[in-house]
This record gives sequence, C-alpha cells and structure tokens, in this order.
Amino acid sequence: MVRFRCLLPLTLMITVSPLVASGYQMETVAEGLEHPWSLAWLPDGRMLVTERAGRLRVIEDGTLQPDPVSGVPRAHVRSQAGLFEVLPAPDFEDSGWLYLSLAEGDSTSNSLLVVRGKLDGETLTEVEQVFRAAPERSTSVHYGGRMLFLPDDTMLVTLGDGFDYREQAQDNSNHFGTIVRLHADGSVPENNPYANGDGVLGEIYSYGHRNVQGIARDPETGLLWANEHGPRGGDELNVIQPGANYGWPAATHGVDYSGATISPFRELPGMQPPEHVWASAIAPAGLAIYRGELFPDWQGSLLNAGLVSRSVQRITVDEEGRITGEESLFTELNARIRNVRVGPDGAIYLLTDDADGKVLRVTPRD
Amino acid sequence: MVRFRCLLPLTLMITVSPLVASGYQMETVAEGLEHPWSLAWLPDGRMLVTERAGRLRVIEDGTLQPDPVSGVPRAHVRSQAGLFEVLPAPDFEDSGWLYLSLAEGDSTSNSLLVVRGKLDGETLTEVEQVFRAAPERSTSVHYGGRMLFLPDDTMLVTLGDGFDYREQAQDNSNHFGTIVRLHADGSVPENNPYANGDGVLGEIYSYGHRNVQGIARDPETGLLWANEHGPRGGDELNVIQPGANYGWPAATHGVDYSGATISPFRELPGMQPPEHVWASAIAPAGLAIYRGELFPDWQGSLLNAGLVSRSVQRITVDEEGRITGEESLFTELNARIRNVRVGPDGAIYLLTDDADGKVLRVTPRD
Repeated sequence: MVRFRCLLPLTLMITVSPLVASGYQMETVAEGLEHPWSLAWLPDGRMLVTERAGRLRVIEDGTLQPDPVSGVPRAHVRSQAGLFEVLPAPDFEDSGWLYLSLAEGDSTSNSLLVVRGKLDGETLTEVEQVFRAAPERSTSVHYGGRMLFLPDDTMLVTLGDGFDYREQAQDNSNHFGTIVRLHADGSVPENNPYANGDGVLGEIYSYGHRNVQGIARDPETGLLWANEHGPRGGDELNVIQPGANYGWPAATHGVDYSGATISPFRELPGMQPPEHVWASAIAPAGLAIYRGELFPDWQGSLLNAGLVSRSVQRITVDEEGRITGEESLFTELNARIRNVRVGPDGAIYLLTDDADGKVLRVTPRD
Repeated sequence: MVRFRCLLPLTLMITVSPLVASGYQMETVAEGLEHPWSLAWLPDGRMLVTERAGRLRVIEDGTLQPDPVSGVPRAHVRSQAGLFEVLPAPDFEDSGWLYLSLAEGDSTSNSLLVVRGKLDGETLTEVEQVFRAAPERSTSVHYGGRMLFLPDDTMLVTLGDGFDYREQAQDNSNHFGTIVRLHADGSVPENNPYANGDGVLGEIYSYGHRNVQGIARDPETGLLWANEHGPRGGDELNVIQPGANYGWPAATHGVDYSGATISPFRELPGMQPPEHVWASAIAPAGLAIYRGELFPDWQGSLLNAGLVSRSVQRITVDEEGRITGEESLFTELNARIRNVRVGPDGAIYLLTDDADGKVLRVTPRD
C-alpha cells in the first residue's frame, strides 16, 4: 500500500481591473498563410512560421518565401489537427536542430508527434522522431502541441485530452492531458517528478490538463505560465509546478457546451486551482511574457492570444504570480488570434487564425 | 500561492477467496431492543447498549434492565437519526466519563452531537458537550456517528455526508464526510494533520468519506480500518491515514441508486483508493477486529457487520493490510446486523437491526 497526504490549496480570489492601453501601431509582415500557428526566429534573422495546413514557411528580409520548406513530415490535417509548433533548439547555432510538433496519422488513428531536423537551405534534413504521444487516438482535436525549452535545455511539450478521452487526463499511464518534459533527444530527465515510476510515465511533468495552447516562462520571476483551453466558462491560466495535478476533468469551472455538468467540483484537494478563470470563453491560444524594451509599461505582462475573444489579453501579475489586472488589446483587428510572440526586437507579433492568415508586428506608436 | 504535489496511489487488485468457517454457537443476551446500535462494556462487567430510538440501556448480570438510563440528551429520532454510539473513556475507572454520539435537533436543522457524562446509578450526570458537527443539516441520514479511542487517548468521530451535502465531503471548511480527531475534552490535538490551518478545520483527521459506519484499530498491526457505506456498488473498506482524502464523491466505485453516474472516476491521483470494494451492496455497519482467544482461527480477522448482506463479513488481511480472503458468517440469522463487537471474554457479540432487536453472543461450538 502506498500512503501519502496532500496539502490543500488556498482558494485564490482574483479581482482584475482594466488598465489603460499604451499607444501602438501595427504592420503586416506576411499574409496569405493558411491558419498560421507558430512563429520563431533564427539567429540569422529569418523567421519561421507554421501553417496548420502542414507547411513550414520562411520569412527572409521581411518577405514570405513562396515555397514551403521541404522534408517536413506529412501532418494529419483535419479540424484542429495539422502542423503546430516550430521551435529552434537553444543551441541552434551549434546544433542546427529545429523542433516541430504535428498531428500524424489519419482520422482513425493518429497522435501528436515531435520531430527534429536540420534546415539545409529550404529543406529539412536528418529528420528524426523525438517523441510521440501514446496511445493513438481517433479524434482530430485537443492536441496541445505547444513546446518550450527551459533554461536547463530540457523541453516541455503540451498534450491535450483528445476530447473523447478526457478522463484519461487523470490517468498517468498515458499522455492525454499532460505536459511532458524531455531532454532534447527525447529521453526522460532523471529529475522529472515521476521519473521513478509508481506506475506514472516518467516523462510526465504535470497533468490534469484539458488542452494547453500556450506556455511561457518568465525569466525574471522564474514562473512557468500556461493557459488552458477549457470547456464553456472554464478557460484557465495556470502556474505550472512539477508533479502537480491541474484537475481536469475532476475539477473545473466550466461546463460542457451542451450545458451538461462536467464535475460538481471547481476545486478539489490535491489539485492545483487555476490562477485565473475566464468565465466567458476567450479560447486561449498562444501565450507570451513581455520582457522586451519597446513597451516599458508592459514589462512582465502576460500576453494571451484569444481565438473567440478576437483579442490579446494583457494580464499583469506581481512577482509571486498573483494576477493584478487585465485588459483586452488589438480588438480593432476583429480577428481570431492564434499566437502572440515577442520578437528579438522587442516588437509583439501576432498570428491571425484564418484561411488567409497574417503575421502582424506591433510596435509603439511613433 | 500554495504549491504542492501528490504521489499517485498504486491500483490494488484484490482477489478474495472463501475460507472455511469455524464452528460456533449463539445465545441471546438481550432482546426487545428498538434498533440497537452500539454495545460497550464497563470494567465492572456491565454492558451498555444504545437503542437508536434514543435510549441507553444497561445489561447487568446477563439481564437487560427494564429502565433506560436517565439524563441522556434527547436525540432527534427519524430515518437513520437517533442515539448512536456509547463509548467509555479509556480511563473510565478513574474519570467515569462515558461518551455518547447522537443526532440532535429537528427535521429542519440538526447535527451530530458528541457528549460525555458520568453514570451515577441509572442516571447520566454532569453531561457536557464535547463536539458538534457544523454546519447544521436538514437531512436525517448519513451521520457517521462511530467513535473510537486511539492508544494516545485521543478520540476519532466519524461524520457522514448528510446525503444532500455530498460535495461538501471535499470541502474541509466543514465537517461533512470527515473523521475528526479530538482530545477527550473535545479540544484539537496539536499534532492533527491539519492543525495548522490552511483553511482546513484543525480537527479533521481524514476526509472524502460518505458515511463511515464502522471503525476499528488492530493493536497488533497498528492499522486503523474503517468501512464506508457507499452508493450502489461502492461499499468500501479503507485503511485510514492522517490527512488522507478518501475521494467521495469525486472518486467512487458506486453509482446512484437511480443508476446515475456520480463520478467517472473510480480513483483519482491524490485520493486514497479503498483496500476493498463490495461490488454488490452489503451496507456495512459496525466493524471489529478479532484479537480474542476463543476463536484462534480468526485471529486478526476483520469482522464487518452487514445490514443488506444480513451477515458478518470475516475478512482476513496480512500484516501490511492486504486483504487475503473473505467469508460470510451468521447468514442463518437472516437478520440485518448493525454492529459486531468482541467482548472482554473473547466472544463475538452481534446487534440485530430490528424494531425487536437482539444482542447475540457467539462462542465456539462446545
């Protein structure tokens, strides 16, 4: 028999108040992208952007190159499935490794695959599998698919509940509804919270997630933030702790879109409550933390892309991760925002989720 | 923010096999008792028995005394409500304290009350409140009501979920669905698992219970066993650990009697799984551990009274609390068994749950 105990989380009541928006201007960097999903910068100044339709595109000297990168594994493209994240390794200049996440398989059996390869001109070469979520699923929604390197060069990958498999988010013998932590080659770090078993997959870093669509680490506070696409009324913002259970679907503030109750519990002992819950759906997507120099007033703000909200939520937090305010930005676009990134130049970049999607660059008003 | 993590319980698969019953004989000690609930022995050889109808009775020299003890607080008697446990203090010979648990109040507002008093002839005197479960409730079912002294002279009291308040069993700012641990005077021991707050009531010892109707500690193994009256298909046997969450109603093997699902989870991380689940309802009531001398073959067996099973389950366990076998005893009575106790004489005593209930004494066949 395994004996254990849990401490109870404190219930955290959050009051958010609107902030005054700074002035900014916006330019189109690229357009005609089919549901762009992820954006990254290479040390040589090139930008990479994924189209969920399965293409990896290059923006060079401010111009979208007409041909997609070849050699990218074929993605299962349907509903929410497709090519997701592009992420250069922290040692990209030396190693040349570029990481991609994608749905792979078909409508009857597919999974979230992470591969890495090296960019040789406009071709991805030496492509190898880093990770594949298990088991396979027959749905084409709720993949997670976000990736992030931590300062120790380990990598986090977010993995959704597959919608039809939501109870599996509380069963750690599979990958549904988890965030996994891997070495760059896909092996399991020995200091993972469950590396020593007890029936839990060693790569699991946190669990009880529904569909984490944005993850970002604040280098100043060290806090690891993730949003989570919840059910109706259950979109969340969490601080991720190793080993913690984020409760889905045993505890949630949301209800099914049918109106059916998912759980009578908003919180449960032993499960981490969210730092913030959006009572009306915003459908959070990408997440960034502003630590650039162009917007001094926004230092340390969380920038949360919203699909349904058709805006970016700028959320202010204190050093202990308590949320102190929230405002909606870029509502004038009236566009589903898939991702928000902060460029090396300190500008804010947005991806609009559209069959004719754009990369937009936001800078302070002249 | 409070950060924490939980280890996962191992899933424990239990195989029980029937055992060969020893020979025994049975005699009637007392009868004509209105739903007898609890039985206790005083150092002078007298036996005390409660009637759920609100009366405390004395059996002296093998004879049920005609008049109930006076001075007992008036119980709220309705449905499952009434007078429950009688329990002498461990230092009864010196202190004279006798503990009683009962439902107190009325059909619109009542609660589980623990009092103590001193037996002066046939009168309970110096009656004082030790504990009262909060908040009040408007139901007259699912009280818990069992009490047990531990070797350190602290006292456990089991508290039910009140049926209509089942979600409260996961909210530790109230007493629903908990086991509390108290000093003999009702004060909170400093070494209770939640004595230092975090919004949890300091008296809480374990939680996530539905309706613990039997609790017993094995002096040989030190294991603290409790049964739990579950929903349909969810009767449980648990080993109680300080601070642990037993899952109700977030995790249960049972369903509502309507057939409605209570939870999609049989187990959840951070919640203690039962040692045993009875898939068909037995409606467990009193629980004892046989450490007497009259039945050598039954040493260390758990004896679990069953109302619906109309029998006593004898369950064998190993020293680590793993269940190794189970058989049904006393089925020939065809009676709802409310309680099973082991007397100072090593005999097994049964209380039958009937308007004309009996105290029965079981000894080895001559």
